[in-house]
Amino acid sequence: MKTYLDCIPCFLRQALEAARAVTGDEKVHRQVLDSVASLLSKLPLEVTPPEIAQQVYRIITELTGSSDPYHKEKWRANQQALAFYPRLKEVVAGSDDPLLTACKLAIAGNAIDLGPDFKYADIGSIIEAALSSSLAINDYHKFRDSIKNSQHVLYLGDNAGEIVFDRILIRELRRIKDLKIDFVVREQPIINDATFADAVYVSLDRVADIVSSGSDAPATILSQCSPQMLRLYHAADTIIAKGQGNYESLSEERKNIFFLLRVKCPVIARLLGASVGDAVLKRQDTVSLAD
Amino acid sequence: MKTYLDCIPCFLRQALEAARAVTGDEKVHRQVLDSVASLLSKLPLEVTPPEIAQQVYRIITELTGSSDPYHKEKWRANQQALAFYPRLKEVVAGSDDPLLTACKLAIAGNAIDLGPDFKYADIGSIIEAALSSSLAINDYHKFRDSIKNSQHVLYLGDNAGEIVFDRILIRELRRIKDLKIDFVVREQPIINDATFADAVYVSLDRVADIVSSGSDAPATILSQCSPQMLRLYHAADTIIAKGQGNYESLSEERKNIFFLLRVKCPVIARLLGASVGDAVLKRQDTVSLAD
Repeated sequence: MKTYLDCIPCFLRQALEAARAVTGDEKVHRQVLDSVASLLSKLPLEVTPPEIAQQVYRIITELTGSSDPYHKEKWRANQQALAFYPRLKEVVAGSDDPLLTACKLAIAGNAIDLGPDFKYADIGSIIEAALSSSLAINDYHKFRDSIKNSQHVLYLGDNAGEIVFDRILIRELRRIKDLKIDFVVREQPIINDATFADAVYVSLDRVADIVSSGSDAPATILSQCSPQMLRLYHAADTIIAKGQGNYESLSEERKNIFFLLRVKCPVIARLLGASVGDAVLKRQDTVSLAD
Repeated sequence: MKTYLDCIPCFLRQALEAARAVTGDEKVHRQVLDSVASLLSKLPLEVTPPEIAQQVYRIITELTGSSDPYHKEKWRANQQALAFYPRLKEVVAGSDDPLLTACKLAIAGNAIDLGPDFKYADIGSIIEAALSSSLAINDYHKFRDSIKNSQHVLYLGDNAGEIVFDRILIRELRRIKDLKIDFVVREQPIINDATFADAVYVSLDRVADIVSSGSDAPATILSQCSPQMLRLYHAADTIIAKGQGNYESLSEERKNIFFLLRVKCPVIARLLGASVGDAVLKRQDTVSLAD
């Protein structure tokens, strides 16, 4: 998808928050805001929001000296989510449809995000809310069928902390059948997105092969991905894409992609025909494969 | 109060919304955003937010050709609020403490605002919520005492629609004692703030003298006010200041001011020690008059 004008104030807000996470120096905060505003005024809106976010975070790194503003928050989210892991397993095991419950939890975990203006309170309440509400867009049956017909799943991760919830879903996928599953992380830290170190920390490597996208974009921008990642992308039977960033970068791709996300901003809400806060499991609608 | 860096993305968001209210032309929207971003990068943050808002809206007028982007929304708000007027009167008359109820309703009416990122659903639900919740900052007893000791009240209005709720409070003030009450409106349209025409439309002139501030700021910026308005300001025993704009511009004044507002953004929430959405009746704490 292209970038909307609504994204411009949002990028500035995000830049300010990230700068504040690194330093208390207001002069640096203002420098960051001014530089990002100047960048945004020159940018064509035909590029996707995560491509702009990538440039915004490069400015933050340059002006604050930190290449990982949310380092602490990421580790905290991983630790907090890991503490819930035994409970997540129990909830899934005790449910009528464990795969559906695991999908709902994986989508719930997507609430752990420091980019959009959509802050999560605590992981316990995220879980409760997910279990008591239904999916606003629900292509679960297509998803289940697609998994049954697949040998190879490419799972595009999103945030630290959230990846513990992804581990739960991957575990369920493996119960259904013997699948090759590759889990894709960002090459470098950006916002609170999961990298290789995060994936290993939460033991995702026990259930999937961890692969870097080859890019520090907070999304899957194919033109920036490594040849290895692209081979997997083209070989996979089913692609699971977590979060808004992956949706923004892949919404026009003609592949068998399932987007699992929480809607976090009015622009995405409008595009999906959903509301901010909604849980979405949506099959890519540019293809009709396996329908 | 000074302007915070958090206000910068918020001004851009507001500018985009106002431009969209006038025209569907995306080129104009982008022009507005770029011009406002350029203005903001040059501004000292020592000025108050409404002074910046005033300059932002001048850019909108210049680039869109409209000096009143929210004209239709204002009239709609006036009409909708007027439809509730009989019910508001009944609610106040039937309550244990009519003045307190009228204060709560006047604060509730402040939710009718198109500036901040805090949109109201409908006036009926605003009223219900106000009556069932308490004031987060509650200087009501000081307010009641101040009114009892006053001869002259200056009432600084805020938004169209909201002024119907102000009429309810003014009606109650008049029941308590025979007061001179001047109601201040903006000199020119800005955002959805009430002007002379709005005040007359909702018959506020039946219960108060309507006075223009002499300025098109969405606030009470004393250096821009007319001599007439300043005379009233200095002569009044009690000043009622509605909304965040009037708070932002008068928070450091040493006068007997009561701020009646809904908290609509995290910056004001932090300054007041309250939460977004809270109802506040706060006496100016820079003075100790009549305590």
